[in-house]
Amino acid sequence: MRVVQKFGGTSVGDLDRIQNVANRVAKTVKNGDEVVVVVSAMSGETNKLISYAEHFSKNPSKREMDMLLSSGERVTSALLAIALQEMGVEAVALSGRAAGIRTNSIHTSARIENINTELMEKELQARKVIVVAGFQGVDENGDVTTLGRGGSDLSAVAIAGALRAELCEIYTDVDGVYTTDPRIEPKAKKIEKISYDEMLEFASMGAKVLQNRSVELAKKLNVNLVTRSSFNENEGTLITKEEKIMEKPVVSGIALDKNQARVSLRGVKDKPGIAAEIFLALAEKNINVDMIIQNVGEDDTTNLGFTVPQNELSSAKEVMEELNPADKLEYDNDIAKVSIVGVGMKSHSGVASIAFSALAKEGINIEMISTSEIKISMVIEEKYSELSVRTLHDAYNLDK
Amino acid sequence: MRVVQKFGGTSVGDLDRIQNVANRVAKTVKNGDEVVVVVSAMSGETNKLISYAEHFSKNPSKREMDMLLSSGERVTSALLAIALQEMGVEAVALSGRAAGIRTNSIHTSARIENINTELMEKELQARKVIVVAGFQGVDENGDVTTLGRGGSDLSAVAIAGALRAELCEIYTDVDGVYTTDPRIEPKAKKIEKISYDEMLEFASMGAKVLQNRSVELAKKLNVNLVTRSSFNENEGTLITKEEKIMEKPVVSGIALDKNQARVSLRGVKDKPGIAAEIFLALAEKNINVDMIIQNVGEDDTTNLGFTVPQNELSSAKEVMEELNPADKLEYDNDIAKVSIVGVGMKSHSGVASIAFSALAKEGINIEMISTSEIKISMVIEEKYSELSVRTLHDAYNLDK
Repeated sequence: MRVVQKFGGTSVGDLDRIQNVANRVAKTVKNGDEVVVVVSAMSGETNKLISYAEHFSKNPSKREMDMLLSSGERVTSALLAIALQEMGVEAVALSGRAAGIRTNSIHTSARIENINTELMEKELQARKVIVVAGFQGVDENGDVTTLGRGGSDLSAVAIAGALRAELCEIYTDVDGVYTTDPRIEPKAKKIEKISYDEMLEFASMGAKVLQNRSVELAKKLNVNLVTRSSFNENEGTLITKEEKIMEKPVVSGIALDKNQARVSLRGVKDKPGIAAEIFLALAEKNINVDMIIQNVGEDDTTNLGFTVPQNELSSAKEVMEELNPADKLEYDNDIAKVSIVGVGMKSHSGVASIAFSALAKEGINIEMISTSEIKISMVIEEKYSELSVRTLHDAYNLDK
Repeated sequence: MRVVQKFGGTSVGDLDRIQNVANRVAKTVKNGDEVVVVVSAMSGETNKLISYAEHFSKNPSKREMDMLLSSGERVTSALLAIALQEMGVEAVALSGRAAGIRTNSIHTSARIENINTELMEKELQARKVIVVAGFQGVDENGDVTTLGRGGSDLSAVAIAGALRAELCEIYTDVDGVYTTDPRIEPKAKKIEKISYDEMLEFASMGAKVLQNRSVELAKKLNVNLVTRSSFNENEGTLITKEEKIMEKPVVSGIALDKNQARVSLRGVKDKPGIAAEIFLALAEKNINVDMIIQNVGEDDTTNLGFTVPQNELSSAKEVMEELNPADKLEYDNDIAKVSIVGVGMKSHSGVASIAFSALAKEGINIEMISTSEIKISMVIEEKYSELSVRTLHDAYNLDK
């Protein structure tokens, strides 16, 4: 089997942990697997380099930042290759360039355009473990680029796709994806398999295991992703095509996002295209609008509500006050968004009503509701966050 | 004027020092010069990375070591470019690869084969300061290589040669080359100009300003080298072709090497080729023999003496005892080699006699003498090291 294993910053955080990673990789090789390892910089390194750059400039050139930041992953890949060689495992360290990762030229947040797998295929043929410096590639000018936050995950997924690997394992310091945050609900269970779309809903709501960009790429390239811990031997969570998940649970899990603020517009002015105007103005300021609700208020006026990340509320406020599109503008920082995610919802009716009645029974008022095919999101008062997560986890029997 | 400026590890040892280097480079740019800067890793970085590698292996793969060690210079070059840009100086950081430095494939001690200056010429044309990561290049497989000890100096000299720069300035923490070690003779004076050959004699005797490899390359490529301090504005020492030095002093300076040990063979066996046999056996053990003296002893037997670095004396001893080539073998660690260097000696007779009588007057016995066109080396008892340096410095009026 051909496997890509990606180890993040905490998994390679010090020399002993790099040795642990080497042990784990060696075990996979012993199983007879072909292994490509993708590594991040040792935790703390990238931040250290950023602080160095900021010593000189508040707005350092992105091209030079990429040259600076790409060095951390090179160090880890060389060290891991050396550790593997010492254990008698044939290994070769490759920079992003050497691994054939071509990107566009948008420095510090480049996109992978293609991967020339020639050298990697040759090294795999020679039964070598390839240790690739993650997070980086090279543009058409030959300049080093980096892929932005979560970039090493992207490297791993893209390489798994290009090499047609059976599996792409993302090692972090958590065991996988849970039915909800175990710090809130101790009865939360690890999910064995989950679809790309469900994972995307989880990730966008702060289940910090994987960045959406990586899940999206895995979906596009049809890569079987596994997220698991590098600190134990537990099986992780497989993220794969919906078709491959035989027993589809109605609800897979409950996600909580406390980083939301609400803007309410009562009595929106009766003007054609006013909604478009509002959201265009917000987009121009790069404000990320999440939920949008519109309904009819008293006297046939329109009420409009939307949520934004908390740190973008003041910008949203400015935009709204300049636009002045409604009789009354209200802002609320003390809200949370709790969401029920599950592909099974598509074919099961009555999923929402279970949530509504369970929350009602606890006296929790639902302030906004938004639904998609595989998700029901509800805005509630922030103080009820944990209680509503536990209530919903229970209502859908997720601990069973 | 086109100038290459190289800054070593202590000159870029921390962020403030990198800022100092940026200030200095900016000043050169203001003079209207075209500037290529070559930088080392921040002092301590390379040793840190080596200790990381040694955590995993006593004998780490050299290919991976090169990938590991080359990262330090990349960091410095990116940081310096960022600092320059912030000051409004257009600058671009280039790795060894991007600077077109092609080497052979002898990892960790590669040799520069050629430099493709296309990109550098283009950037200079665009009036940009080029900041090159020193110490590194790339081999025909595209793998990163490093040039070994003193590698950044080599990068600088090779680039200066390839770009036909008028000057290659090597910045360190000392002001230049002195007539002798100022810690021994406070009256020592900085030398304004010195020939490549004289510098080679100084460097090989522990004047640690420049490695011989760099001086040899500068001589071969006809590069005007200047060694000076990055911590002050003092003029340094120009190392150039002998022809360019108008006033040739008879003696340029006095060098001292305390790291020598002597092996004496009395009554060498009368066997054809015995000397060749001795030095072949030493060479096979990679023992660096420096001075060799042979003369006729009593009863027509031959006496042979040679010096080796002190830490190679025990190996030399082993070789001698196995070979057993003489009646009597003697070893002496307590010696020093003091040398008089100067191109003017070629045309001036009587240079040696001044030394001999000056030392005799102080009661210093000369145990071995070896001469070349521009050097007279003498082995003395180690305890007289400093006294003989001061005596000779005085005898040749080097403080004038």
